[in-house]
Amino acid sequence: MATSVKPVEITKFSSGSRKPSPDLMAVEEPLEIRLGYGPVGDRQQKSLSVTMRTPGHDYELAIGFLFTEAIIDSYDQIESVKYCEDVGRQEEIENVVRVELRPEVNLDFDKFQRNFYTTSSCGVCGKSSIESVEVSCTKLSDQLEIESEIIPTLSEKLREAQQIFEHTGGLHAVGLFDSEGKLLLTREDVGRHNAMDKVIGACLFKKDIPLSNHIVMVSGRASFELVQKALRAGIPIMAAVGAPSSLAASLASDMNMTLLGFVRAQSFNVYCGEQRIQ
Amino acid sequence: MATSVKPVEITKFSSGSRKPSPDLMAVEEPLEIRLGYGPVGDRQQKSLSVTMRTPGHDYELAIGFLFTEAIIDSYDQIESVKYCEDVGRQEEIENVVRVELRPEVNLDFDKFQRNFYTTSSCGVCGKSSIESVEVSCTKLSDQLEIESEIIPTLSEKLREAQQIFEHTGGLHAVGLFDSEGKLLLTREDVGRHNAMDKVIGACLFKKDIPLSNHIVMVSGRASFELVQKALRAGIPIMAAVGAPSSLAASLASDMNMTLLGFVRAQSFNVYCGEQRIQ
Repeated sequence: MATSVKPVEITKFSSGSRKPSPDLMAVEEPLEIRLGYGPVGDRQQKSLSVTMRTPGHDYELAIGFLFTEAIIDSYDQIESVKYCEDVGRQEEIENVVRVELRPEVNLDFDKFQRNFYTTSSCGVCGKSSIESVEVSCTKLSDQLEIESEIIPTLSEKLREAQQIFEHTGGLHAVGLFDSEGKLLLTREDVGRHNAMDKVIGACLFKKDIPLSNHIVMVSGRASFELVQKALRAGIPIMAAVGAPSSLAASLASDMNMTLLGFVRAQSFNVYCGEQRIQ
Repeated sequence: MATSVKPVEITKFSSGSRKPSPDLMAVEEPLEIRLGYGPVGDRQQKSLSVTMRTPGHDYELAIGFLFTEAIIDSYDQIESVKYCEDVGRQEEIENVVRVELRPEVNLDFDKFQRNFYTTSSCGVCGKSSIESVEVSCTKLSDQLEIESEIIPTLSEKLREAQQIFEHTGGLHAVGLFDSEGKLLLTREDVGRHNAMDKVIGACLFKKDIPLSNHIVMVSGRASFELVQKALRAGIPIMAAVGAPSSLAASLASDMNMTLLGFVRAQSFNVYCGEQRIQ
């Protein structure tokens, strides 16, 4: 059984002295995502991606990844998700997830290949990738408005919910909040994009996509990739504990997302989409 | 000309008030790495990778990536590195770097394809990837020993050298130190793996690889990928401001690397390779 935390023996140096000490470490292991697709009688399979992730919520990660990379567009396209049992060694079975698509799903292999190529799901240049995102995302409406007072509370709520981080100091977290600032769901992972895919995958399983009345908060910085994934899920507000990158802010602005950075107990920055903050 | 920092106008919310404010943002843009290879008269080209990076030191990033991904083994295999001028628009030219290999270099396309597939340069499972790293890295010798007193100073030295971070709060840094704790080189990037590739690429240009008497320090956590890249460059000691992952520690231990985490002004943890710390 895969675990998220591993006990280890380390040596602590502190103010000149050294002593052995027990410690906990965040587990990082590869997850391969395999895809089965095609009409009955002519099924194909493809190894789609290997990501270094913290074990746990692997099915959410797999379908979240397929959705945020625009390989699938809805939960209805999935026939089954399971660990791949024809992997050689027992201990590797939980490191390979196989997603079977329904026979009628047509895959756009050009798009697929592009995602595959790029590793961070952008196109060849900033402009192209923003254009390609616009194809698969819907520009967000201004429908949601939230009270500015709730924003400084998000960071503390996410921090409190970070169970594994508390033990290991080694994980990124992504939290999903409702428009009143109530924490609905949190996922942790060594890879921040995985934590986002797990949150979105969990919502796909519950058929809660698009997340039009939600706020997503990330424990680190807001990268282009995280904004892109949140946009795929239709999330209108992203808040980050850290800074956004220029391309993240540019994409958020183009797609009418509200992007918040340096969200702390007393203050935060708005990079775009201020109209949603009352 | 590509820049690393971009001025922006934002809105700052602080203790209940909002006001417009100028700010600086770390630039994130895609860099495509293209490879030219093959014998004279039968040259081939391939788009190898697109990574989201902070512009600057792009040639270092490109050759560092090729080396740490084990596509090339030495600087001597490179004929030229330049921005690709046959890219369509002027503003995209600096987002595509073309590396020409010498005609006699034979590429192992199986290895190439595997790297390409996996995005974080691991194999399909933890064990396989560790084995595949052992093929392309040499297990480190115990030759280097350092004084424990220098380790708590590394973090502050790296922090002082982080020029872009100081303005934007948005970048990872990797610093290369000698065995006395003197900072030799630092690189910043939105992607921590890029910062590592830039450091290693810079050393390749100077033909300073392997870095057998060096310490590398990363501003965030120590992932499997970062340990793997440092191992390729023969660096015997890695220090991280944050926590290591389980697979990072396992790989470091297998390859006889010294791995240090939570390196602070008064203390640090040793996960493996303690024999190098006097």
